[in-house]
Amino acid sequence: MSLNITKLDTASADFQQQLKSLLAWDESDDLEIQHRVLDIIADVRKRGDAAVIDCTNHFDKRSVSSALDLELPKEALLSAWQSLPVDQAQALQVAADRIRAYAEHQKLQPWQFTEADGTVLGQKITPLERVGLYVPGGKAAYPSSVLMNAIPAKVAGVGELIMVVPTPRGETNALVLAAAYLAGVDRVFTIGGAQAIAALAYGTDTIPAVAKIVGPGNIYVATAKKLVFGQVGIDMIAGPSEILIICDGKTNPDWIAMDLFSQAEHDENAQAILISDDADYLLAVEQSIHTLLPTMERADIIKTSLTTRGAFIKVANLMEAAEVASNIAPEHLELSVEDPEALCQHIRHAGAIFMGRYTAEALGDYCAGPNHVLPTSSTARYSSPLGVYDFQKRTSLINCSPAGADNLGKIASVLARGESLTAHARSAEYRIK
Amino acid sequence: MSLNITKLDTASADFQQQLKSLLAWDESDDLEIQHRVLDIIADVRKRGDAAVIDCTNHFDKRSVSSALDLELPKEALLSAWQSLPVDQAQALQVAADRIRAYAEHQKLQPWQFTEADGTVLGQKITPLERVGLYVPGGKAAYPSSVLMNAIPAKVAGVGELIMVVPTPRGETNALVLAAAYLAGVDRVFTIGGAQAIAALAYGTDTIPAVAKIVGPGNIYVATAKKLVFGQVGIDMIAGPSEILIICDGKTNPDWIAMDLFSQAEHDENAQAILISDDADYLLAVEQSIHTLLPTMERADIIKTSLTTRGAFIKVANLMEAAEVASNIAPEHLELSVEDPEALCQHIRHAGAIFMGRYTAEALGDYCAGPNHVLPTSSTARYSSPLGVYDFQKRTSLINCSPAGADNLGKIASVLARGESLTAHARSAEYRIK
Repeated sequence: MSLNITKLDTASADFQQQLKSLLAWDESDDLEIQHRVLDIIADVRKRGDAAVIDCTNHFDKRSVSSALDLELPKEALLSAWQSLPVDQAQALQVAADRIRAYAEHQKLQPWQFTEADGTVLGQKITPLERVGLYVPGGKAAYPSSVLMNAIPAKVAGVGELIMVVPTPRGETNALVLAAAYLAGVDRVFTIGGAQAIAALAYGTDTIPAVAKIVGPGNIYVATAKKLVFGQVGIDMIAGPSEILIICDGKTNPDWIAMDLFSQAEHDENAQAILISDDADYLLAVEQSIHTLLPTMERADIIKTSLTTRGAFIKVANLMEAAEVASNIAPEHLELSVEDPEALCQHIRHAGAIFMGRYTAEALGDYCAGPNHVLPTSSTARYSSPLGVYDFQKRTSLINCSPAGADNLGKIASVLARGESLTAHARSAEYRIK
Repeated sequence: MSLNITKLDTASADFQQQLKSLLAWDESDDLEIQHRVLDIIADVRKRGDAAVIDCTNHFDKRSVSSALDLELPKEALLSAWQSLPVDQAQALQVAADRIRAYAEHQKLQPWQFTEADGTVLGQKITPLERVGLYVPGGKAAYPSSVLMNAIPAKVAGVGELIMVVPTPRGETNALVLAAAYLAGVDRVFTIGGAQAIAALAYGTDTIPAVAKIVGPGNIYVATAKKLVFGQVGIDMIAGPSEILIICDGKTNPDWIAMDLFSQAEHDENAQAILISDDADYLLAVEQSIHTLLPTMERADIIKTSLTTRGAFIKVANLMEAAEVASNIAPEHLELSVEDPEALCQHIRHAGAIFMGRYTAEALGDYCAGPNHVLPTSSTARYSSPLGVYDFQKRTSLINCSPAGADNLGKIASVLARGESLTAHARSAEYRIK
């Protein structure tokens, strides 16, 4: 199985232009999909449960007659958990414990301080009251994703976590339900698509409205999430998965080839890039790819991904590698080098950094602890991994003493009059002694 | 000047329905505006500076010929600052210092911990590299808004802060430029509208692309921000300003009337609501409104706002007031009561809470310290005030020891095979001893 992977070199005059073409990813907004999703949302807002039932029967080929049948009984989660093979149950449990332990470090804490005149300023932290978790059905249903989305919400103190998961033809996924049990999901509805997002955003008689919706989904789900944003909060809209590996040429090339495969196997649009200052090493990894590819279950997907979106980039030195990586702002960044701590100092943008030859990105996907929901498509320039902080919010607190109000009132009065907002000014002036 | 304000009572059978109607605010997406904005964005992406110049000359009635003329020289900011009357300069300086002092408390800190097997997990914090700050032109140009948006960005460590502000017919606003100087804005371009947002999002030869755009604007600016989201980060899309006051009937009714006016004077759609358990007090505040209204410069705006969107809500007791307020999730919440700390414990959602009779909301607008950019339209259910954290981002760090990779590799292998992702599994398995 031969495979042609794009080769770039920072020494080329047109490197920046070539890199830009390689990274280009424009999930063009499909107007037709938008209109279909808008119709579904409008229908759910208008007809509630009846619309959700109609969509579910139509799209998921089911024959539900009562909205009550859309909810899975809690016992279904428990029995899914109890029916797991012991090795899977143990692995899920360890992963959940580690995700929870890491998440505990992310909890926002309230704070306040008192000024000399007795005025108190601070910030209050409150968890979101109710959150919706979308879980895709079928082959893209990953129990690890349930843990990664649900556990930070529960650590934040979210009161009620509502999971929705489509069950085409009524088929449930035992691993997903077991993960939901383990993560402490409160209620599960077997609905999906834009109708599930609309139901969570606006609520129906049966499905309670939430404050925020998280979790991955197909283009209909992503479009619906964008369209209900404002009514509820949403997490990011994820693009294709990405890995960028910087290697100094001293890691076993088979390891690096397999790390590249581990992103490429996600889907044809996934992007796997290797950067090295060692040209011979790039050849060695290419050889490993050729040798290993035929042994992979998802060889076709991997081949398409690596051929159309993958690349090897030759750099002059590791500092240049850090610069190129920062400009790419990848979702996953492996620093497979001798001194990853030193190199890490020079990375400005990445979703997660996997340091050292032993830290395979796949460890982070499942059980290292940090979240696997990460900013894609260069959005690590301005956004962060999913975390406990996404399920908490801040409220500013101001408690002026009479002396503080006297001081601040004089300042506010001048500024408010400068902006011609005299009610503001007079409101402040009432509090001046 | 007579004024009819809506009266609600939680004792009424249809209170919830009436409250829902009162709060309803649907800024319907105007398709025509969207198409016009999409055209402008496409034009700026295609023609860069030339498109920005054409739009600016057209919409702002200017006659710019070179893109270089779109940038204000730094000396213009300094001289605006130096030309300020001393009371305004001092007031701005105190406000800036207080905003900065509060913001310092919000800085995210990196953390890491080492596990028993030597594996290190942590979180790295990086400021955004370059941020765009939109400032409206004309009468809605508020120097306080420049401070509130710019200072947290600089405290976060943003490398370059680019301000855009339209200058219709070439007229600049000295107070706004002085505030920009004081806040440490790095560069200022005299452009506005959708063309300014597009230029910041995609960059032109003259205007550098940013990672995130913050700041208020009209419907074209808001629409453009929504449309470029993903290419860059954006702050919230603000709805009309809101104040909700809970009063136990013991604050001077004139003070409360003026506090309501201070939101109502912003615009006709602003929403000012007073909740009390004291029916006589509600009558007293109404009397104050009637007396004070004719003395207000913006009496017409205040009257329209209070008549169409304002309300007095009679509750049975203050606990019920806290419940109603939490369900409204207001941008600004005044607790004008004897024991605001106790009542604050029962507030689940609000952008900022102003505690005690002396803490006029207007003090927070200018100089108390906390940000005045706050979640509106009930989005306090899931979002936070603008803060330093909006200009920093997190990156997960994972550094597995060989022993850690051995432990985690076994777990990841089981889970990856459970998800049929065998490249993931084999990548992890390579690191097992």
